[in-house]
Amino acid sequence: MSKLNYAIGVDLGGTNLVAGLVSSAGRVVFNRKLKTEANKGRKVAVGNIEKAIQLVLDGCTPEQKKGLKGIGIGAPGLVDHRKGIVRNPPNLKGWNEVHLAKIMSGKFKLPAYVGNDANVYALGEHTFGAGKGADCMVCITLGTGMGGGLILNNQLYVGSFQTAGELGHVIIDSKGKRCNCGNFGCVERYVGNSYIVERALEKIKQGRKTTVVKIAGGLDKITPKALSEAANSGDKLAREVWKETGAYAGAALSSIINTLGPRVVVIGGGVSRAGRLILDPIKAEVKKRVFKYLAQRVKIVLGTLGDDAAVLGSASLVWHHLK
Amino acid sequence: MSKLNYAIGVDLGGTNLVAGLVSSAGRVVFNRKLKTEANKGRKVAVGNIEKAIQLVLDGCTPEQKKGLKGIGIGAPGLVDHRKGIVRNPPNLKGWNEVHLAKIMSGKFKLPAYVGNDANVYALGEHTFGAGKGADCMVCITLGTGMGGGLILNNQLYVGSFQTAGELGHVIIDSKGKRCNCGNFGCVERYVGNSYIVERALEKIKQGRKTTVVKIAGGLDKITPKALSEAANSGDKLAREVWKETGAYAGAALSSIINTLGPRVVVIGGGVSRAGRLILDPIKAEVKKRVFKYLAQRVKIVLGTLGDDAAVLGSASLVWHHLK
Repeated sequence: MSKLNYAIGVDLGGTNLVAGLVSSAGRVVFNRKLKTEANKGRKVAVGNIEKAIQLVLDGCTPEQKKGLKGIGIGAPGLVDHRKGIVRNPPNLKGWNEVHLAKIMSGKFKLPAYVGNDANVYALGEHTFGAGKGADCMVCITLGTGMGGGLILNNQLYVGSFQTAGELGHVIIDSKGKRCNCGNFGCVERYVGNSYIVERALEKIKQGRKTTVVKIAGGLDKITPKALSEAANSGDKLAREVWKETGAYAGAALSSIINTLGPRVVVIGGGVSRAGRLILDPIKAEVKKRVFKYLAQRVKIVLGTLGDDAAVLGSASLVWHHLK
Repeated sequence: MSKLNYAIGVDLGGTNLVAGLVSSAGRVVFNRKLKTEANKGRKVAVGNIEKAIQLVLDGCTPEQKKGLKGIGIGAPGLVDHRKGIVRNPPNLKGWNEVHLAKIMSGKFKLPAYVGNDANVYALGEHTFGAGKGADCMVCITLGTGMGGGLILNNQLYVGSFQTAGELGHVIIDSKGKRCNCGNFGCVERYVGNSYIVERALEKIKQGRKTTVVKIAGGLDKITPKALSEAANSGDKLAREVWKETGAYAGAALSSIINTLGPRVVVIGGGVSRAGRLILDPIKAEVKKRVFKYLAQRVKIVLGTLGDDAAVLGSASLVWHHLK
């Protein structure tokens, strides 16, 4: 493909909405940001998505507009990827079932696609980022929860009911802590944002010394970011928290790697900004647990798309469907 | 396909070798059985495979021979499905790397394919058995160990390194018992044949009453089969052992189901002869653990191919590749 073409990628969050023009070379040309206003109901929120897309269209040069191949939207929760329907997204109240692809393609006369946000993130890293060229790729996103996306034989894999990739709900201790999903011992219950902080607080309560409280500006202000800073300046407690977090994630990934035998595992999401603090213990755990033959071959890497990941991933739906 | 055609399916075990003529209707027309004689080395064993295939050819009618599409071999251990190579099979010493497909297609002038035995079992259940028509299917085989096979989007899924489907090494307790593979808390360490018996023995040592010792003919002769018999006549201890075994398998399957979102899960292997004794607790555990939306939709069933499963599965490689 010598000539660039374009897609609009929309990252639909519960609070914020970002739409961007993405080139087929994997660059976000420009972005437009709005509030989702999910609390004002479905009509307002859908209207805001249309507004954001229109703002991107208004910002296009005639050539960019001519090369536009479609719109891709990444949405939270259960998404029917084939029909482009969003179902009961957790942070978008009152949505029930919204035929988002149909609405947008009708409005803008462009092909429109919808994907689950974690799936779309995986697709973005596969199309433009750390998973480029990998036939089979597992992707996890570490943040409030732990999301996942699977690219199997170069295709986004959604399973029979479009639910696949719920990697945060892989069990690491079947008799362990209760997860929000109702299950017990899901890895998300150990590596989600608030649980990382919870473990730091437990250690502090035990009387352990740490610089993280000062760095965070208070005991109730500790975040993974503050724990990264502390760990990077040599704070023992913080380093321990990251090591444990990585080991938990690594245990779950070991099950997933033994199951799927992927070429590449990509670690993304806000918490992955901790970088090697979390990557190294994940790798160590996988090396310890996975079949040697496979452990020697699978590559575990950080995502490379950074802040643009969601918009790039959403846009990549357009090209993935074009295949 | 109105006219029947045929394939030879070979089940290559460490001790026994079965080759059968299989019709495209999914019937084993006839079988030939030999000893593998794995202890006599690779040359003898490969010769025995050839002998078994020749015996089947000799038993064919001219019409059956004319309709023969190829040879499929199910082998233990690591198999390169694309190249038809068997690598270091655990029960076939001194094999290193054997180009089994090439040897057999050269010898018999027929297309030949090789698959890992658990994968091939899954393919058989998908082609002819309990998974027929399922776009995505997860299969486990319960026996000495726990094997697995994945059919994803109607294709046998082998992953980037042809290792996929090692479902016995999905973790249910990351700090649990050490598995033969080196990992900790793999489900195989809780549901493998000898571990089922181990749990029964533990309960007996605690002074619990049971009829299973008498049924088995001695404390050292307890088997899953005896535990099934005992449980079916109401033995409490035996019922408990099955309930626990199913719960362990169900916990691992919950992780796998949340990951892959399959339409059907098929439970096979010798231990699955326990039937509902193991199926019911698996189902109960999955219902308790998996996302409700998915738990309501996924079907968990026993395999239906019985004793013919291995030969049917191996033969189905021929038709799968023909697609």
